Amino acid sequence: MNDQRVIATYLVETAFSLEEAALVIAGEQSTGTFTKVPGETDRLKEEHGARVEGIELLEERYQPGLPGATVPANHDGKYRAGKITISFPLHNFGPSIPNLMSAVAGNLYELQQLSGLRLLDLELPEAFAKRYQGPKFGIDGTRKLLNVYDRPILGTIVKPSIGLTTAELGQMVERLALAGLDFIKDDELNANPTYAPLEEKVRVVMEAIERAADKTGKKLMYAFNITGDWDELRKHHDIVKNAGGNCVMVSVLSVGLPGMAYLNDYSELPIHAHRNQWGMLTRSPHLGIEFTAYQKLCRLAGADHIHVNGLNGKFYESNASVVSAIQACTTPLYAGYETMPVISNGQWAGTAHPTYEATKTLDVMHLAGGGMLAHPDGAAAGFESMRLAWEAAASGESFSDCANKNPVVQRAIEKFGKVGH
Amino acid sequence: MNDQRVIATYLVETAFSLEEAALVIAGEQSTGTFTKVPGETDRLKEEHGARVEGIELLEERYQPGLPGATVPANHDGKYRAGKITISFPLHNFGPSIPNLMSAVAGNLYELQQLSGLRLLDLELPEAFAKRYQGPKFGIDGTRKLLNVYDRPILGTIVKPSIGLTTAELGQMVERLALAGLDFIKDDELNANPTYAPLEEKVRVVMEAIERAADKTGKKLMYAFNITGDWDELRKHHDIVKNAGGNCVMVSVLSVGLPGMAYLNDYSELPIHAHRNQWGMLTRSPHLGIEFTAYQKLCRLAGADHIHVNGLNGKFYESNASVVSAIQACTTPLYAGYETMPVISNGQWAGTAHPTYEATKTLDVMHLAGGGMLAHPDGAAAGFESMRLAWEAAASGESFSDCANKNPVVQRAIEKFGKVGH
Repeated sequence: MNDQRVIATYLVETAFSLEEAALVIAGEQSTGTFTKVPGETDRLKEEHGARVEGIELLEERYQPGLPGATVPANHDGKYRAGKITISFPLHNFGPSIPNLMSAVAGNLYELQQLSGLRLLDLELPEAFAKRYQGPKFGIDGTRKLLNVYDRPILGTIVKPSIGLTTAELGQMVERLALAGLDFIKDDELNANPTYAPLEEKVRVVMEAIERAADKTGKKLMYAFNITGDWDELRKHHDIVKNAGGNCVMVSVLSVGLPGMAYLNDYSELPIHAHRNQWGMLTRSPHLGIEFTAYQKLCRLAGADHIHVNGLNGKFYESNASVVSAIQACTTPLYAGYETMPVISNGQWAGTAHPTYEATKTLDVMHLAGGGMLAHPDGAAAGFESMRLAWEAAASGESFSDCANKNPVVQRAIEKFGKVGH
Repeated sequence: MNDQRVIATYLVETAFSLEEAALVIAGEQSTGTFTKVPGETDRLKEEHGARVEGIELLEERYQPGLPGATVPANHDGKYRAGKITISFPLHNFGPSIPNLMSAVAGNLYELQQLSGLRLLDLELPEAFAKRYQGPKFGIDGTRKLLNVYDRPILGTIVKPSIGLTTAELGQMVERLALAGLDFIKDDELNANPTYAPLEEKVRVVMEAIERAADKTGKKLMYAFNITGDWDELRKHHDIVKNAGGNCVMVSVLSVGLPGMAYLNDYSELPIHAHRNQWGMLTRSPHLGIEFTAYQKLCRLAGADHIHVNGLNGKFYESNASVVSAIQACTTPLYAGYETMPVISNGQWAGTAHPTYEATKTLDVMHLAGGGMLAHPDGAAAGFESMRLAWEAAASGESFSDCANKNPVVQRAIEKFGKVGH
């Protein structure tokens, strides 16, 4: 790791040569403007200029990926796609996530000379670890709070996403807690609505959880969605904390990375980071950011749990891409910064095997909304079907053998196996 | 304006019918999950469901705009592009920008049933205006601070963007202030670097501005880039305020909309909102957000000035799109929420005419980095060339007549007219 420079890798497409494109990127994001100006000395360029560290041609294309790109006068009709690595002196912006983003992303996406730009990865000096403490709980801390080891944390999302009264929600949570679930989260659509204000929701839900815990001996983790304006983050955190709650959730792209970092400086609870809106930054292959880069920033900013999609889910993302996201999150950052990937959307017992086979890790949260709650025999059966499927996957038993031995799994297949999962 | 519902308009592309796509969007972002769950009652759907308000087919295509989209079993090979309007009950999330975004953007970009999704516009109930006070200074307040009326605020960006020592910067600012400029801003790449810490920069720059003001009688406005983590926003605002500064700048996408709203609750200075990273959210025509929608959120959150691009600039954006962004910003929101559009990048005297002709407004900031500082006769000549060009444009005189009468404009053409602007 370089201690003095941030290293950013981009996927670039350009009608110019990759060398020219690399120089434009380095110039735009450090010392340059469109015409030479007084004061742009050699000393200044040497000390503050971004530097092209590597260029690798991947492919030649005949159509630009994005609109608005210019071509050189003698254009040969080709658009060159390749990986470009640029390093930036850390002292240009210091270990500050918001200012880092203005440098490594900034105006680059608007450059005429590029018909594609995607930030693939970031290598960040140790100074960022000094500035941002990262997850306070992480994988170990979450397991310890729950006393669940050697298997994924299994849970669900409150469905219907919105509209339940706090009384209805309380009953539901109590039922699910008695059914043995490890974890429940608010839907990202539900934070502090007028029909079920957070304070009341927290009270009712925590009472339900405590009642169930008195019977089962197990206190479920509930991620209360405290997404809101910055003055609300602390206030809502305290409401949860003071009621005996054990997890808060924020929509990272709603509050911003500095919003989450601010919460993390203060928080005494695991932070469950939801990444809704992320598709906007990543679904075009020609634009945006790769999750490999973004998850590092989320971990620095304090995400104890972070959402990825799920295999065979209902979203556009390929299984390969989901697997790579899970692997990115489980790769150590600095001396740890352990964050638990949260697998969800379109999940049920049947997605345990492909997930385990592709990732070989049990250190995930596996959440199923409909796939747990709508099990034909109820939520307890939904939970049990997922637990058994993971146990089978981890021990090398096939899913069909698992189903043959366990009616509760067989019943899940009958219901969810038909919907294309 | 609807007082009870948020109305969102999307550009959608889908291999299914637009009607099916609209229902998927409405379901995903309100009461639905992938399978029917207990508790999803008719009462709940009626009170909390998003509603399809309008569908307009625009075009049929034979290639999907984005990857990962599914097609129906009987797919006719067509992808239908159209406008879909969806309304959301305000009580689902309340007048909260972060929670609004989880609803109107949220997971929509990831839906398999869509091969394109772009948020075009938002209509927000009055409750948002009650919650977010918007710009404290706006156009009138900025003009009053500067005592500049009946023409654009003309200024520049510190170039080289980074690397100047505070002493060098101070000298430069004093020279530019004596040259008569209205406005200078830090580059978005330069906030609080170790080689020129904000506190020292503010002191040196404000001394330079006051010295010049003593001679000219005019106090230039300097937008200090205070982009940073949450705890820094207030601290840096106070440093600027206490030194007699008159403007702070933040990179909106770096600090997040709630970050800017938080600053605005507290700030006693105009907030200059830089939109770097915005290209990431908007350059793909199939994805992201249109500026028409985003600028409303920036204005609610307190942007007194907001960056758009410039006509004939160095970025990818078409002139038509830049004009539409300027027009969006100058369209009243609620009872005002006046924000001054900031036109920059690749600008010089020659871009005044096309800008005025297309927008017919003088209520803009027009910033030129190289186009002012690198004028062959110096920055005072650069400023004068822009002032004269705007005066000509507003009075109906052509740019060439203006240049014939004014050598300082002619000299600008000789230098910048050749670089394709």
